[in-house]
Amino acid sequence: MIIVMEVVATKEQVEHVTQLLREMGMREHVIVGTERTVVAALGDERKLDVGRMENVPGVEKVMPVLAPYKLASREVQRERSNIPLGGSLGGAAGGKKIAVIAGPCSVEDRTQLLEIAHAVKEAGATGLRGGAFKPRTSPYAFQGLGEKGLEILAEAREKTGLAVVTEVMSIDQVPLVGKYADVFQVGARNMQNYNLLWAVGEQHKPVLLKRGLSATLEEFLLAAEYVMSRGNNQVILCERGIRTFEGYCRNTLPLAIVPEVHRVSHLPIVVDPSQGTGHAHLVPDMCRAAVAAGADGLIIECHHDPEHALTDGAQSITPSSLKNIMMGLTRIAQAIDRDV
Amino acid sequence: MIIVMEVVATKEQVEHVTQLLREMGMREHVIVGTERTVVAALGDERKLDVGRMENVPGVEKVMPVLAPYKLASREVQRERSNIPLGGSLGGAAGGKKIAVIAGPCSVEDRTQLLEIAHAVKEAGATGLRGGAFKPRTSPYAFQGLGEKGLEILAEAREKTGLAVVTEVMSIDQVPLVGKYADVFQVGARNMQNYNLLWAVGEQHKPVLLKRGLSATLEEFLLAAEYVMSRGNNQVILCERGIRTFEGYCRNTLPLAIVPEVHRVSHLPIVVDPSQGTGHAHLVPDMCRAAVAAGADGLIIECHHDPEHALTDGAQSITPSSLKNIMMGLTRIAQAIDRDV
Amino acid sequence: MIIVMEVVATKEQVEHVTQLLREMGMREHVIVGTERTVVAALGDERKLDVGRMENVPGVEKVMPVLAPYKLASREVQRERSNIPLGGSLGGAAGGKKIAVIAGPCSVEDRTQLLEIAHAVKEAGATGLRGGAFKPRTSPYAFQGLGEKGLEILAEAREKTGLAVVTEVMSIDQVPLVGKYADVFQVGARNMQNYNLLWAVGEQHKPVLLKRGLSATLEEFLLAAEYVMSRGNNQVILCERGIRTFEGYCRNTLPLAIVPEVHRVSHLPIVVDPSQGTGHAHLVPDMCRAAVAAGADGLIIECHHDPEHALTDGAQSITPSSLKNIMMGLTRIAQAIDRDV
Amino acid sequence: MIIVMEVVATKEQVEHVTQLLREMGMREHVIVGTERTVVAALGDERKLDVGRMENVPGVEKVMPVLAPYKLASREVQRERSNIPLGGSLGGAAGGKKIAVIAGPCSVEDRTQLLEIAHAVKEAGATGLRGGAFKPRTSPYAFQGLGEKGLEILAEAREKTGLAVVTEVMSIDQVPLVGKYADVFQVGARNMQNYNLLWAVGEQHKPVLLKRGLSATLEEFLLAAEYVMSRGNNQVILCERGIRTFEGYCRNTLPLAIVPEVHRVSHLPIVVDPSQGTGHAHLVPDMCRAAVAAGADGLIIECHHDPEHALTDGAQSITPSSLKNIMMGLTRIAQAIDRDV
Repeated sequence: MIIVMEVVATKEQVEHVTQLLREMGMREHVIVGTERTVVAALGDERKLDVGRMENVPGVEKVMPVLAPYKLASREVQRERSNIPLGGSLGGAAGGKKIAVIAGPCSVEDRTQLLEIAHAVKEAGATGLRGGAFKPRTSPYAFQGLGEKGLEILAEAREKTGLAVVTEVMSIDQVPLVGKYADVFQVGARNMQNYNLLWAVGEQHKPVLLKRGLSATLEEFLLAAEYVMSRGNNQVILCERGIRTFEGYCRNTLPLAIVPEVHRVSHLPIVVDPSQGTGHAHLVPDMCRAAVAAGADGLIIECHHDPEHALTDGAQSITPSSLKNIMMGLTRIAQAIDRDV
Repeated sequence: MIIVMEVVATKEQVEHVTQLLREMGMREHVIVGTERTVVAALGDERKLDVGRMENVPGVEKVMPVLAPYKLASREVQRERSNIPLGGSLGGAAGGKKIAVIAGPCSVEDRTQLLEIAHAVKEAGATGLRGGAFKPRTSPYAFQGLGEKGLEILAEAREKTGLAVVTEVMSIDQVPLVGKYADVFQVGARNMQNYNLLWAVGEQHKPVLLKRGLSATLEEFLLAAEYVMSRGNNQVILCERGIRTFEGYCRNTLPLAIVPEVHRVSHLPIVVDPSQGTGHAHLVPDMCRAAVAAGADGLIIECHHDPEHALTDGAQSITPSSLKNIMMGLTRIAQAIDRDV
Repeated sequence: MIIVMEVVATKEQVEHVTQLLREMGMREHVIVGTERTVVAALGDERKLDVGRMENVPGVEKVMPVLAPYKLASREVQRERSNIPLGGSLGGAAGGKKIAVIAGPCSVEDRTQLLEIAHAVKEAGATGLRGGAFKPRTSPYAFQGLGEKGLEILAEAREKTGLAVVTEVMSIDQVPLVGKYADVFQVGARNMQNYNLLWAVGEQHKPVLLKRGLSATLEEFLLAAEYVMSRGNNQVILCERGIRTFEGYCRNTLPLAIVPEVHRVSHLPIVVDPSQGTGHAHLVPDMCRAAVAAGADGLIIECHHDPEHALTDGAQSITPSSLKNIMMGLTRIAQAIDRDV
Repeated sequence: MIIVMEVVATKEQVEHVTQLLREMGMREHVIVGTERTVVAALGDERKLDVGRMENVPGVEKVMPVLAPYKLASREVQRERSNIPLGGSLGGAAGGKKIAVIAGPCSVEDRTQLLEIAHAVKEAGATGLRGGAFKPRTSPYAFQGLGEKGLEILAEAREKTGLAVVTEVMSIDQVPLVGKYADVFQVGARNMQNYNLLWAVGEQHKPVLLKRGLSATLEEFLLAAEYVMSRGNNQVILCERGIRTFEGYCRNTLPLAIVPEVHRVSHLPIVVDPSQGTGHAHLVPDMCRAAVAAGADGLIIECHHDPEHALTDGAQSITPSSLKNIMMGLTRIAQAIDRDV
């Protein structure tokens, strides 16, 4: 870490800083500049609360040097992780082939889900999404079918071969969801639910980790680190839009995170253009843009009857729209030497 | 809800919209304007996913009319709620007297906590904060003392009379934390951890609910509604800063939420100027500003040795600074006909 | 506009609202719902300050129905505008062919600019960017060469045929910049410099209008409307990134604005991935993503020696990188049935 | 500046960095840490585009050490600036007494303005605000009375002694506005209109500089620096709210900027709670909060008939409300040993 001293900092204050650094097991390097003194602290700052140095007399600001995550970083693993989704269709996130996961926001009933699942498979996707436990902003809204929904998802997998990606909201649901799902989804609202991250970190199935609405990239990778620190390296990052002042979309989809994740991490990153925009009419173009940006996969909300969808009707596309999108994506993927 | 049709919407499309509304149990009112047709839908829209109407052909946009929360709203209860904190000093949030809760970010050891607790009491506060379970951005950071920390907090209550406010991070911790705490704190990262909200909603102790980093006021009140919908009306809202582009502070503290909460809800709202700014040097002025804005309480991080604090040293003030702040707050409170 | 009354609004308050609406020349439509009364106001709300209705006793909120812009909207013109850039290479924004404009952030000297201009042309671009007047955050930074820079740009056009796109910062510079430029660029900081918008609205050359750092889409289109309201319909919108909490990029590039602009406006929209990310290493993928999202053009910072660039070295790509990008873009463009 | 090298940076890359630094006239200090090498660059980085170092091979990130502003900083002047507003009532910003400037958003006619001006004076304010040139989001909205409005403002000053604070939007308006105004107001949309900043920097009257909607504190102070670099040190900063995701207010008013400005700059800072919230019902509490936070003044929109105001009716308070607010502020000011 770099500690910038105030212009008026005294020699004693600089010495006090160096002493505190030594207490922390770091070595210091004092640089007396033209306008102010800077102290460079050498050693592993990851386990320390470096922020507290800010409050030390004479200190103006503290700037960390090291990224605080390790297992998720490219420095630990240079080659990209390629994580199989499960199911029998061979989908995976992180390889040359782009994973497409589609399905309804929530499992509403058996007929609905099976109909959509068949359409999703036919369109060429390899994963099926669908919530059995739904985190809803209002306590009065439909909260999902629970285990019944999981059973329907498992049946759909049997019939189609699609890998089942479904959300787990709470530590007590982990065993149950694990019984049916191929991939645990951790939702944006739970990205910093650390007990849940640890719990899925002890499982042996991939975790699709959605970025929190206002999480920094560093916080996002540290959430992955929570999972990985318990032994589960199968983390698939998912960008699903951030909250900004923009009003024409429900969330702002920042696609530059895709190349940045590829630069600093070995983990695959998929994009959710449905949550990421909130409007079905923006989904097709943003699917194309995400793939062109290098995304390792897409997760798309698809419903056979959006007008009657119990949840997220506004952003769900129809199966026929999905089919068209998939055809377009094939061409985009080829243009960057990948496949869908 | 109001449904604005596109300029080019056909008569059939308008009819289809009215039919969908009737299916939802709503009555419609079609207004043919100079430039476009607007459909006003009458009935309780709270249980419906009104968003799905956006995806219906011919619809341009959908505007909800009703606030989606009920129990938390001032329409249900016009007088302000006044919620006792517990402890033996008579602190409460929501009355004329402003509640001050202070203490370290985390319980580090018995000596530390008791020393700070005595100073906090002496400064005139009625609540003691301190984390035994700490949600930390990095899995490698200090995670709290767990039950040992809770025991120390309970001892401090016995010795000082201060009400104990401490965080619960997970549903499985609810019984344990409930055994020691006077007030359950739900942290910002868990504001939309709905299973946790339900779990504390079934308890008989106050819940200090922190606003999520990028939660809207509506989402914040709906989180309170989750707790209240299970029977626990003792919800104390806590503004702790939002994430914006600003860099001189760790979070932006939006104090206008205080009068707005008083306008739309009967729940008390306290302010956390420590998390809300991230820097000890901004805390005193923001304490004063929060009280002047009408806050029902403050929750302040205070540490006897911030340079060695295990967590949040940057934003912790010292006991002597707390004492000074309290003296200043007394004068501000009097200026608006309240007490500290 | 829709006026939602408070639950406790009296009949007299509703009548007062209707009277105010009539004073404004609007007709009203009162809808008495189960929980509250809503007043729909019919008539052109664009010239009114509808916000003032919020302050009327008994009013809870006011929701505008009409988009406040007209000339820029798709309702006025259904077919897309196709705006020639000038120069002799036939570049245009808004047609099947995607316009690529590249060049240095600022014109530094004749040798630099001519070298870059030739490389830009060779790479296949049809427009040359380069600032002669530079808006700089610090008054101590390089402010551009002024007219000398414009002369160099004009020479580059003569030698290469590239259309010259360069910024005008102030109304007094309009005649001078107009003498040399093919396209007036209005920078993000000046998006709401209305006097400048009017001044370029009286010219007969295209205006590349950059979105302000935190402008909503509505404000962006209203800025275009300022230009168009003075008779100049040749407005090319340019998305250059918005300010958010994100830290890995200097700005967040929200590509969903591209399909949204195409939905609500007939104006072309180009994307600036250099300003839009702030880092050269993110530019190539975001060029691809922008084209896949449907952008009508790109404006890219390119410098033959970024290490010595006087401005924006961090986000400038080299000519050889530009060449590679252009080859990749050709394939992406073909995948969506367009050309570069 | 501090340059952090990549883990895999070679010795040659570090040498290349040091060479570039020397070319810039800086001295370097290479620190070889456990995980990576850091280069500290000594010398004045303010005139350099330090960002370009990011693009140099082997460089991971660049962290500036020095604040880029000088004249506005507290390092240049330790005592606070106290800037008289003009008029005959002795108002000033920066001293013990808090300046209150009130008046309508725009001058609508002589009768309106004089009526409001008398009420403003009676309430105890020392400055009169009112726009003659109005920057409006829509080109179809009321744009102000121009010189006629300025004449009315001057008449109001004669009759009341209030200092006239009014906006200048464009360099060509500077002489005209300067003829009538006591204080030039530069609006938020023009905070980075550098030609305008230079123009008012050459005048001999105070400049009330409003913070841009998404300007960082650093950019805000650099805008002040633009004015000061031309010789006019009479800059009064004005916080008027920033754009965030919040919806209950038009802008988010971040009061922590008040103590932060006092920490890093000698310039006074006033707060605009009208623009800063966008709703009249939030103004009184935010006036109190701003003063308690240490603001050197307030600028408040006040209209005798908000229901018929041509602009900003939603956020204008009435004269009688202003009077009440002023009485409350007197008590708050006393509580922090200041006056109103």
